[in-house]
Amino acid sequence: MRTLTGLQPSGKFHLGNYFASIKPMVEAQNLGKDDMFMFIANYHAMTSVSEAKKLKDATFEAAAAFLALGIDPDKSTFWVQSDVKEVLELYWILSQLTPMGLVERAHAYKDKVAKGAEAHHGLFSYPVLMAADILLFNSNLVPVGKDQIQHVEIARDLALKFNNAHGEIFVLPEAKVEANIATVPGTDGAKMSKSYGNTIDIFSDAKTLKKQCSSIVTDSTPLEEPKEWKTCNVFAIAKLFLDDAGQAELAKRYEKGGEGYGHFKMYLNELVWNYFGDARDKFDYYINHKNEVYEMLDTGANKARKVARATMEKVRDVVGIYR
Amino acid sequence: MRTLTGLQPSGKFHLGNYFASIKPMVEAQNLGKDDMFMFIANYHAMTSVSEAKKLKDATFEAAAAFLALGIDPDKSTFWVQSDVKEVLELYWILSQLTPMGLVERAHAYKDKVAKGAEAHHGLFSYPVLMAADILLFNSNLVPVGKDQIQHVEIARDLALKFNNAHGEIFVLPEAKVEANIATVPGTDGAKMSKSYGNTIDIFSDAKTLKKQCSSIVTDSTPLEEPKEWKTCNVFAIAKLFLDDAGQAELAKRYEKGGEGYGHFKMYLNELVWNYFGDARDKFDYYINHKNEVYEMLDTGANKARKVARATMEKVRDVVGIYR
Repeated sequence: MRTLTGLQPSGKFHLGNYFASIKPMVEAQNLGKDDMFMFIANYHAMTSVSEAKKLKDATFEAAAAFLALGIDPDKSTFWVQSDVKEVLELYWILSQLTPMGLVERAHAYKDKVAKGAEAHHGLFSYPVLMAADILLFNSNLVPVGKDQIQHVEIARDLALKFNNAHGEIFVLPEAKVEANIATVPGTDGAKMSKSYGNTIDIFSDAKTLKKQCSSIVTDSTPLEEPKEWKTCNVFAIAKLFLDDAGQAELAKRYEKGGEGYGHFKMYLNELVWNYFGDARDKFDYYINHKNEVYEMLDTGANKARKVARATMEKVRDVVGIYR
Repeated sequence: MRTLTGLQPSGKFHLGNYFASIKPMVEAQNLGKDDMFMFIANYHAMTSVSEAKKLKDATFEAAAAFLALGIDPDKSTFWVQSDVKEVLELYWILSQLTPMGLVERAHAYKDKVAKGAEAHHGLFSYPVLMAADILLFNSNLVPVGKDQIQHVEIARDLALKFNNAHGEIFVLPEAKVEANIATVPGTDGAKMSKSYGNTIDIFSDAKTLKKQCSSIVTDSTPLEEPKEWKTCNVFAIAKLFLDDAGQAELAKRYEKGGEGYGHFKMYLNELVWNYFGDARDKFDYYINHKNEVYEMLDTGANKARKVARATMEKVRDVVGIYR
């Protein structure tokens, strides 16, 4: 099964990103059952990021971060969207059989515009480009959040319509929504999200990480008294790093009393710092050895392009690109 | 001044196409004052032609026809749109600063849909791709019919908006509407147009040409009587091929009487056949020597791509494509 994941070059990655999407993806890669295709969706990001330096840095940093966190370019096909231009030709071709109504009904566009985003052609056309991403690489499965299911369905609709007109060219993709994905609480207890400003970031320096851990909201049980671990945000985050024994041990410390939330926050701080120690070293190394990252991305783009070209050779022929 | 013309791969070319647009274009090329860029707009044609073989053949035949009719790849830059992929990346990038309202207001889309064309994303997005065509090649002038002026204005709007945001990257294009372009009447006296079925085609075989000339509508003045050349469709078409002396001579034959419309139609038939004799030979040659055409198109695409890449290097940098 080929599994395609588009990764947002969102700059800073936090624990929510890691446990909900990066870790499961890397685990699937290492299991070796699926043929994993992952790309950094920098063309898509342009629909919301208009500052050049921000987009450029975020794209590179995302590449460095994903590699540091375990994407292995020997096991997976990993590239940056803008390095495989074939996707734009397929985007134009699919546009010819995309009824306006299909795009107009897309929730994500309507929601974004309702929330104040500028209604521009790029944002509107996003689902058609996403369909091209999916169909170009013969993807079977597309792991997505609930808000993106409709976009995968659009891709599937277009594949069906195209195949009906031109023969069996495209694989019909399916959205894969993880049922039991970890929901990671932020420092305020709500879902961890950059837009809520409640994140604990993976590649923070020691000082920032300490500050983020300290800012976790707790109740005001005095130091010496027993504490409720079941409802504690510090515990809820810490347990992501702990096995059953580790969780039981920490729960005992809560129940025993004699330690304040400051101690538990310090403990969490250590857990995070140590867990990502190796990734942080790799990330720093990549940031200082850009060419090595570029080389890996080139290799990935070449692998992806091979699949893309094979698809486009068929597509160009059946739609009548002259040679 | 760089002048950009997008040519429709419309298959059969008729006298209307020739005298209203191809001849003036070739004359401008041969004058050598303007830097002429001409491309066969096969991506655009996809918005209305869905049959692969038709589009493929029409694209190649248009290339052969334009070369046969005088486009000189040494004097001009002449290529097929789908051979210079950079245009699609610029199309996506321009989409990010194209307000939906700007595209929604485009008359051509609304008119086509009103006339029953399917409202699909490709047709809707046409003006944004056309803007990319124009801006990619630093075009100063874009010769267009009245119905396309708005599209050139959209390109200019986007160039201005982009330059305001990112510095002087794009040349601001201007539409050039030929004031005194020949209006060529069709066989029924209305404007010659493929959609009216009243054309006389340039590369018809002798039999078809004879039939088309014979079908010209005339009045029923008997053979021996004098005839009115001023209102005669045969005369109106024939004069396109005649200098002043030739026109005066033909007018005299009308006024003298003793010749029927059949004679004048036969004379027109000869004029057309002889005028395009050389072009017809070349066209036949190209149809039978496809590789020579491909070579010329490759050379043209390479010339065009050089300009396109220089533009895109600047554009990619200022919008934040990562490298």
